[in-house]
Amino acid sequence: MLIVKKFGGSSVADKEKIFNVAKRCIEDYQKGNDIVIVLSAMGKTTDHLLEQARDINPKASKREVDMLLTTGEQISVALMAMAINALGVPAVSLNAFQVAMHTTSAYGNARLKRIDTDRIKNELENKRIVIVTGFQGINKYDDYTTLGRGGSDTTAVALAAALHADKCEIYTDVDGVYTADPRIVKNAKKLNEITYGEMLELASLGAGVLHNRSVEMAKKYGVQLVVRSSLNNSEGTVVKEEINMEKMLVSGVASDKNTARIAVIGLEDQPGVAFKLFNHLARHNVNVDIILQSVGRDGTKDISFTVKEDDLDEAVAILERHRATSLKCQKIDVERDVAKVSIVGAGMMTNAGVAAKMFEALYDVGVNIKMISTSEIRVTVLIDEVHVEKAMNAVHDKFLLS
Amino acid sequence: MLIVKKFGGSSVADKEKIFNVAKRCIEDYQKGNDIVIVLSAMGKTTDHLLEQARDINPKASKREVDMLLTTGEQISVALMAMAINALGVPAVSLNAFQVAMHTTSAYGNARLKRIDTDRIKNELENKRIVIVTGFQGINKYDDYTTLGRGGSDTTAVALAAALHADKCEIYTDVDGVYTADPRIVKNAKKLNEITYGEMLELASLGAGVLHNRSVEMAKKYGVQLVVRSSLNNSEGTVVKEEINMEKMLVSGVASDKNTARIAVIGLEDQPGVAFKLFNHLARHNVNVDIILQSVGRDGTKDISFTVKEDDLDEAVAILERHRATSLKCQKIDVERDVAKVSIVGAGMMTNAGVAAKMFEALYDVGVNIKMISTSEIRVTVLIDEVHVEKAMNAVHDKFLLS
Repeated sequence: MLIVKKFGGSSVADKEKIFNVAKRCIEDYQKGNDIVIVLSAMGKTTDHLLEQARDINPKASKREVDMLLTTGEQISVALMAMAINALGVPAVSLNAFQVAMHTTSAYGNARLKRIDTDRIKNELENKRIVIVTGFQGINKYDDYTTLGRGGSDTTAVALAAALHADKCEIYTDVDGVYTADPRIVKNAKKLNEITYGEMLELASLGAGVLHNRSVEMAKKYGVQLVVRSSLNNSEGTVVKEEINMEKMLVSGVASDKNTARIAVIGLEDQPGVAFKLFNHLARHNVNVDIILQSVGRDGTKDISFTVKEDDLDEAVAILERHRATSLKCQKIDVERDVAKVSIVGAGMMTNAGVAAKMFEALYDVGVNIKMISTSEIRVTVLIDEVHVEKAMNAVHDKFLLS
Repeated sequence: MLIVKKFGGSSVADKEKIFNVAKRCIEDYQKGNDIVIVLSAMGKTTDHLLEQARDINPKASKREVDMLLTTGEQISVALMAMAINALGVPAVSLNAFQVAMHTTSAYGNARLKRIDTDRIKNELENKRIVIVTGFQGINKYDDYTTLGRGGSDTTAVALAAALHADKCEIYTDVDGVYTADPRIVKNAKKLNEITYGEMLELASLGAGVLHNRSVEMAKKYGVQLVVRSSLNNSEGTVVKEEINMEKMLVSGVASDKNTARIAVIGLEDQPGVAFKLFNHLARHNVNVDIILQSVGRDGTKDISFTVKEDDLDEAVAILERHRATSLKCQKIDVERDVAKVSIVGAGMMTNAGVAAKMFEALYDVGVNIKMISTSEIRVTVLIDEVHVEKAMNAVHDKFLLS
């Protein structure tokens, strides 16, 4: 069996942890498996390098930042190869140049295009454990690129796809994917299986065990993903296309506090107003989430929507800039202390009344719903941030207490 | 003019020093020159990385050690590019893969074979300052290699040769090449010019401003080398083939305390004895320096020779191992506290009596000579280590006080 295993920076933060990972991988190697390991930079290495860069040039070019950051993973993989060798097993470390990990040109946020597998296959045939730098690639100019947030997960999945690996194990500091964040919801349970679609909805809702791009890629190429703990040997959660057993109605509850609501009040009730508003925001790369438009009245209408709290100030500035000209409105209102709570489940598609049951759970504990958004396998509500814990527990107990 | 400038690790050890180097290079750039900068790893980075490696695996493979160490220069060049950009000048950093710096396969001690110049030339045409990682290369397996001691000097000279640069400036913490070490000889003077041959003899005698390999390469390809201070703007010392002015008789005095004498006493006076002795040492990579063989007497002879003090214990162990079998002798004597003092000068070739003048200087201050070795442009004597300072000053004053 060919297994790709990905470990994050905290799993290789020091000598002891490096040897733990080494031993764990050697166990599977000695059972006769081919092993490819993908590593992030050790501990806080990437942050320290970024600090150095900012100290020298706060506006450092992304090309040079990537040149700097890619040293982090190279240190991890070299040390891991030394650790595995010290335990008597042949291993070799490879960086993005050596593998030939081709990406788009966008420094700091590149996308993988093509991975050459010759070198890795040769090393595996020579019975070596192959250790590959995550997060990094090279573009058509032969410059280093990095893959942005969650990049090492993406590297691991892409390698698994390119090598036709039997599975791709993502090691984290939790046991797997839970029905809700165990720190918030006391009754949260670990899921043994989840579909790609559910995982995608959960990831985009801030339950982020896995980065969206890696799940999307796993789904596209049919890579069997497993989310496992780097601290113990429990089985983890398998992410795949179809779940064998009957589907659970709801497989998880997630919350996201990094959200804020903007209400644009008293817009002219004319065609094209919503287009203009969201076009201004899109041109500045501000992503909008839930949108709610009131019915027109007295020749005016209101449009409310949520953005990431990080983007709030920029979004408001953009709207104020256009308020006098293209965007005539009476008032721009802002609410910071709001949060999204969502239920996710492939079972929803064929089960009516799921949303209603969620609203009932919230009503039971006195939580007011400010906005609602739904997809085929998700229902999201916007509520006051102070009520998140109460709301999640209520919804979780309603759907997931067995 | 195309200038290659090399700065060592101490010249880029922190933010302030990085900006000093950046400003200095920008000055020459703004005079209309094309600038290629070669950098070592910052400060003690290489030592720290080696410590990490040894901590994880004291017998780490050289391949993985090189994979680890090459991150050091990559960090330097990326930060330097950011610093130069911060000062408003375009710059780009390149590592051994991006330049395509081909070497032999020997990890830890590779030799440069061929440097592709396309990328660097393109960047220079785009009016960028190009910053290249010193000390590192790639071999035919697409693995990183390092060039061993003084490797960044070699990178700089090789780049200057490949690019047909007008000069190659090696920046150090001294003003240039001196007639003797100013810390030992109070009257030492800076040389404005020196020949490759003299520089080679001085480098091999422990006056080591430049590494031998870089001087050899500069000589072979006719690269004009300049040794300059990274701390001030003085002109430094030019190293070249022929010196225009009349040659000085002696251009420098050097000493080397890392030396020890072994005397093998009472060897059988037969053909092949010396061959056997030095063959044993050569097979274990122990280099021998000055050799002195006594005239045979009573059917036995003595052979004395010097080795590096670091190699002494190994050399003695090798000899003891073969003493009973192939190497019959009465006694093996060792002297640790000896040192070499040498005079170097292209003028010696055509001037008789130089050695005699040196011996006279030593006799005047009561220093006993234990061994003598000469080449066309060098005279070396072995003396007691305690007399080094006295001997160097006496010899220096005899030849070099103008």
